Amino acid sequence: MNAVPPIPLITLTSDFGTRDGYAGAMKGVIRSVAPEVRIEEITHHIPAGDIRAGAWALRTAVPFFPRGTVHVVVVDPGVGTDRHAIILQVDSQYLIGPDNGVFSWMIQEGTDVRAWKLSDDSWHPDQTSTTFHGRDLFAHAAALMVQEGELERVCGSELLPRWEDWAKNVEVKSGAEGDVVHVDQFGNVVTNLLVGDAGQEHLCVTAFDGGLKLCGVNRTYGDVDSGEALLLIGSHGFLEIAVSQGSASEAFGLKCGDQVKVELV
Amino acid sequence: MNAVPPIPLITLTSDFGTRDGYAGAMKGVIRSVAPEVRIEEITHHIPAGDIRAGAWALRTAVPFFPRGTVHVVVVDPGVGTDRHAIILQVDSQYLIGPDNGVFSWMIQEGTDVRAWKLSDDSWHPDQTSTTFHGRDLFAHAAALMVQEGELERVCGSELLPRWEDWAKNVEVKSGAEGDVVHVDQFGNVVTNLLVGDAGQEHLCVTAFDGGLKLCGVNRTYGDVDSGEALLLIGSHGFLEIAVSQGSASEAFGLKCGDQVKVELV
Amino acid sequence: MNAVPPIPLITLTSDFGTRDGYAGAMKGVIRSVAPEVRIEEITHHIPAGDIRAGAWALRTAVPFFPRGTVHVVVVDPGVGTDRHAIILQVDSQYLIGPDNGVFSWMIQEGTDVRAWKLSDDSWHPDQTSTTFHGRDLFAHAAALMVQEGELERVCGSELLPRWEDWAKNVEVKSGAEGDVVHVDQFGNVVTNLLVGDAGQEHLCVTAFDGGLKLCGVNRTYGDVDSGEALLLIGSHGFLEIAVSQGSASEAFGLKCGDQVKVELV
Repeated sequence: MNAVPPIPLITLTSDFGTRDGYAGAMKGVIRSVAPEVRIEEITHHIPAGDIRAGAWALRTAVPFFPRGTVHVVVVDPGVGTDRHAIILQVDSQYLIGPDNGVFSWMIQEGTDVRAWKLSDDSWHPDQTSTTFHGRDLFAHAAALMVQEGELERVCGSELLPRWEDWAKNVEVKSGAEGDVVHVDQFGNVVTNLLVGDAGQEHLCVTAFDGGLKLCGVNRTYGDVDSGEALLLIGSHGFLEIAVSQGSASEAFGLKCGDQVKVELV
Repeated sequence: MNAVPPIPLITLTSDFGTRDGYAGAMKGVIRSVAPEVRIEEITHHIPAGDIRAGAWALRTAVPFFPRGTVHVVVVDPGVGTDRHAIILQVDSQYLIGPDNGVFSWMIQEGTDVRAWKLSDDSWHPDQTSTTFHGRDLFAHAAALMVQEGELERVCGSELLPRWEDWAKNVEVKSGAEGDVVHVDQFGNVVTNLLVGDAGQEHLCVTAFDGGLKLCGVNRTYGDVDSGEALLLIGSHGFLEIAVSQGSASEAFGLKCGDQVKVELV
Repeated sequence: MNAVPPIPLITLTSDFGTRDGYAGAMKGVIRSVAPEVRIEEITHHIPAGDIRAGAWALRTAVPFFPRGTVHVVVVDPGVGTDRHAIILQVDSQYLIGPDNGVFSWMIQEGTDVRAWKLSDDSWHPDQTSTTFHGRDLFAHAAALMVQEGELERVCGSELLPRWEDWAKNVEVKSGAEGDVVHVDQFGNVVTNLLVGDAGQEHLCVTAFDGGLKLCGVNRTYGDVDSGEALLLIGSHGFLEIAVSQGSASEAFGLKCGDQVKVELV
């Protein structure tokens, strides 16, 4: 495991929403242990228990954070059961949370990936609930992690972290089959199709066994008229199906997990 | 009143939502007076004017913050009327906001509680609206509060803060009657019933005059099958009624204020 | 252009929502370039593509931030098209975003206003998407902007920024015609009518060609009974139509852009 992070920075990702005081409790725990740390929120609006959506939010945001950032992740429908609580090193960053697949995209994207169980010493000394590990274990471990001299306390035995096979890239070629991996809040439909050097003008994507077919890759939403559908390479680097000033998800009924196919014409 | 907080830290709790710039305006005021302070948000999504929900969010988050934290609370349907604007000391932390009952749970939980009216000197020098005390008074007073040498300016005369009798703990014993004090965003139904050393396997909770009856306390949500109801001791230390991977509130129509009863069998 | 901001502080305003990792990605970019900066969020819940709502949120929050604050604004339905990407100086603060009218209220309110195109050097060196300028250009430019010695890199040629004529104040006098400029989350209806020294008790506001008429200016919501409508001078300094403990927008069907008229009686 690497040295102490040069910049103490912790991010939070959860399905807690922002109506309750749960995210606040986590921030209080962190500030009590590590008063100087910076805390940034990625999101607390992952749909309740939606591990796949949590994994995707991490894929969207984590790569842009600096070396040594510690990301606390609490999408944890199995809290208190025998799923492991882990710390994951992905290249120069760390992620702390349940070993339930929520780190699948980070594992897929990482080059140097290792994982350890959180040690028993990671627990909040006064709080050891069975239903709120985000507060009592994950936030506390992250705060210890960024404190110089406390780093070693959080790592237990090494393990192989859980990886789900929906977290994979598919290279574009004729006949390639990919998936919708996310629908964002604008209704943009993100696939796991990665476009290489092949001519983009000859590329078609079909969904619903051909019921939807879009050909040619545009640069940006405004390249077509308002209300028209288009293909583009989104900000994740994947092919996206979009509707200019509208929702492709609503227009075509596409949702996470739906299959899409590539044709080169 | 204690000395200057050792770590300048201000939290925000309001019913402003996050669509408007109101929370941003408060943060601007704080940063203008106290540029070095840390600001953490507990929530801006308390239902509009819901004092009881605001009180509960504080109960959930405040205890985990470090000594000297100043919590700004703006759930204030009576803004501009003759309700007092106060600063409350609860043990080693401070809360600033309207004296409308929103501090009831903090008063209930605190050991050393004192309160003062905010002084006239607490007001923003250029902004004294009658409709946005969060910006012009509470945020400004909090920023003064964490600035060394400005502490004395915020405290006026001492008073007895308002406490509502829904903010009380009920010890579990046969025949005890408690209330639903909160429904969280997962639909978990939190009561004000505190379990002592009595055998948890003999404990039953009924609601709706017995229409709902659950017996035995589980450890965590995953201890029962998906969709099944259970009792557990939640992260607040109170008995909760939950449905594994579901919403107990929806399943049983339970809401804040509903009564629950204890049987020991 | 002024000197380096004395306090490195960046705010974020967008229509990204908080379900996706987009806001998180922007924060990561900023932290990677400028690890010491403070980041405050104004809002990520501007309705998708609603430039006018974005402009109003800035009007609500920006004036309260300290000198040298850099505000990143991403309400950008034309991302990747030929709309300019700009940096705006409004008195002692800076705003970075698309030149699509979203800065209209700030331009209206400012005394000393200048604008420049963002330079080609403002781009993230590794990320130059055509669909996420918030991450690859605006956040990156803001982070450069607050770093000493990097200031000059973000400013290209000067230009006249876009100003929309819905961003104007209307002085109250008999027969004056104003607009609803915002409906806030409480349902308060904010107009662009500015009340001067004229007697407020003689002032009436009508909407719907007289179908709604309210006379006399109250101090605060609690001055009338729950459910009753009132006029007051809101926290922006403009006349507002409100319903005590209710929503004036719902009660009267008023929305942004509707016309209101003044009578002095």
